[in-house]
Amino acid sequence: MPISETWLLPDGVADVLPEQAQVIETLRRDALDFLASRGYQLVYTPFIEYIESLSSLSESNQDLDLATFKVIDQLSGRLLGVRADMTPQVARIDAHVHQVQGVARYCYAGTVLHTKPQGFNTTRAPLQLGAELFGSDSIDADVEMVDLMLNLIKTVGLVDGIHLDLGHVGLFRSLVKHAGLSRAVEKQLSDIYQRKALPELAEFTQTLKFGSDFYALGRYSSDLNALQTHLSAAILADDAFKLAFDALQTTQTEIQARWPNLHIGIDVVELRSYHYHTGLMYAVYAPNRAAPLAQGGRYDGIGEHFGRARPATGFSCDLYALSAGQFKQTTIVVAPKGTSHDLLDAIAQVRLQGLGLIQLLGNDDFNSIPHATHQLVNVAGEWKVEQI
Amino acid sequence: MPISETWLLPDGVADVLPEQAQVIETLRRDALDFLASRGYQLVYTPFIEYIESLSSLSESNQDLDLATFKVIDQLSGRLLGVRADMTPQVARIDAHVHQVQGVARYCYAGTVLHTKPQGFNTTRAPLQLGAELFGSDSIDADVEMVDLMLNLIKTVGLVDGIHLDLGHVGLFRSLVKHAGLSRAVEKQLSDIYQRKALPELAEFTQTLKFGSDFYALGRYSSDLNALQTHLSAAILADDAFKLAFDALQTTQTEIQARWPNLHIGIDVVELRSYHYHTGLMYAVYAPNRAAPLAQGGRYDGIGEHFGRARPATGFSCDLYALSAGQFKQTTIVVAPKGTSHDLLDAIAQVRLQGLGLIQLLGNDDFNSIPHATHQLVNVAGEWKVEQI
Repeated sequence: MPISETWLLPDGVADVLPEQAQVIETLRRDALDFLASRGYQLVYTPFIEYIESLSSLSESNQDLDLATFKVIDQLSGRLLGVRADMTPQVARIDAHVHQVQGVARYCYAGTVLHTKPQGFNTTRAPLQLGAELFGSDSIDADVEMVDLMLNLIKTVGLVDGIHLDLGHVGLFRSLVKHAGLSRAVEKQLSDIYQRKALPELAEFTQTLKFGSDFYALGRYSSDLNALQTHLSAAILADDAFKLAFDALQTTQTEIQARWPNLHIGIDVVELRSYHYHTGLMYAVYAPNRAAPLAQGGRYDGIGEHFGRARPATGFSCDLYALSAGQFKQTTIVVAPKGTSHDLLDAIAQVRLQGLGLIQLLGNDDFNSIPHATHQLVNVAGEWKVEQI
Repeated sequence: MPISETWLLPDGVADVLPEQAQVIETLRRDALDFLASRGYQLVYTPFIEYIESLSSLSESNQDLDLATFKVIDQLSGRLLGVRADMTPQVARIDAHVHQVQGVARYCYAGTVLHTKPQGFNTTRAPLQLGAELFGSDSIDADVEMVDLMLNLIKTVGLVDGIHLDLGHVGLFRSLVKHAGLSRAVEKQLSDIYQRKALPELAEFTQTLKFGSDFYALGRYSSDLNALQTHLSAAILADDAFKLAFDALQTTQTEIQARWPNLHIGIDVVELRSYHYHTGLMYAVYAPNRAAPLAQGGRYDGIGEHFGRARPATGFSCDLYALSAGQFKQTTIVVAPKGTSHDLLDAIAQVRLQGLGLIQLLGNDDFNSIPHATHQLVNVAGEWKVEQI
């Protein structure tokens, strides 16, 4: 194998060199410390699991299954998956391993792997960080989660100019149920919504039962008041619809009260990953970035796969995407070679002050430590730290 | 798939629940911060790579290759390996990606995966943490590395009663070369040494050229002075042998000077992983634990695979093995439900003090937060934090 082929990395996979690694490491710590301060307990989830355990979301979401690397377990002969998403793993922990009565809050951070990039120009190995809340179906929980996500973004210093998107799959889903649409029509409709194709929607809904309501949902998708005035009385009186509508409205109101200057957008037909979400969905965007900084939602069904169907809501983000790339300079003092007592004492003193220090080796000189910022020099018999 | 089968994890793979995760997380941070303070720069290495890149050590060490999970890259159709050891990855970075002139120091921490457990009752997913030094073949570098390893163990609070083992593959290797042994005989001999089978060694070396030297190496493997008096003049005058012997002796002396109370053991026929090590080898043991807490050695050949054969020495450890399991209690204050200004102000105050706080949701009560330690209560119109 020629050298040029051995050091190239696969597409969508990268080394993280010292300057960036330090930024990511700091981000990771700040984020986890913030989540811990809100009572979210850290868990580490396994890198590999039996494929059945990882597929709790993928039963209704083929994308996740396709994104999962599979290997044979040489110990059991069974199929293992490399985690492509840590959410199902945390749900498994909540359901089976760490059975908390009442509300459980978890946070996590770790690399996940995708067989193919999940978006344009994205990594196949995101550093996923997230928080999950199990055991509460109250709107409070949704509000806490959205507020938590926004505070996390604030913690890592990205709050300027951000934009929150709120949606709720319950509006579309209850309308579909009320109208008794077939799976095929539901699928077509959701495709049209996602393409934001209004003329096509107008035509498609003309012959549909409750067609004007489906049209209004798309036409006034970003304005709850306008939507309300254009929906039929029958839909507005539907219990499931009302519940979803109220949840969305309350969350918007409560979040706006906590974040008065935040721009909040509503999109009731944003149905991304709606196959596993069951309620409120949320995403936060930065200016000039297509992909969300963080996103999440309610997915009450998830624990069922593990025999404990608890209400659940959570969000996640990719730390690499969050890292704005601020490089923090670390102090590194270079000390000369030698084992004299006064030198070793001076070195110990510098280290006691919390400064980084490297002692030269063999025939090295100061130039061999390119990231050095200071040196330990002997000035008239006294060891002093001087800037290089 | 029945529930009981979906939540079981593969052998040698485990969830890390909050109590332990917090311990590991703290260990990880303390260890990386200590290494950074010694000028070791953090790198993150990819979880998957082309198998050829990962095999720089495994060419001479089939164990590593057998331990590596392999998957097909759906983008390139090529074979990928999941990292089973991060050392070859850091060597690749030194050789090609982050080409430092002079000495380069790196540290890293991350999960590696093994197809099978690498020892009795060990995990298949260690959290490997380590440090590598490239570009210096001086004994200083070996001493720095051993000292660094000991200080790391001290940093994580495990220094009591530890025991350092030093070895050097150069003694056996130079003797083999001097005697002109065949590969087969060399292999047989190294097997006998590893089994510490002295009677067998006596018999086997009787007919061997330089047999008494090979016997002395095994018989006085732990005592450099005794060894020296029992070796033949020809061997003692061999340049390669002398270099190795001096390196071992100097390292022992210098480390003992820095760690006067440390028990240092010498084993010149400890040939574990000697296929890729090229010089000094070191391991630190805790009382009552069979596996070393940390281990490493010199492996000057490694960069050659990537076209830049630099001197290299380094060590690594498994953070799970290092975690003694000290559980740190975190303060978690539980606050009642509500959005009144005085309550929200009180919550903000508690959070400003750096305490963890959870506000109750929906119909929750204090019992729903089992890890809570304090509560926020209203006493005569004032909000106060009280221990639960």
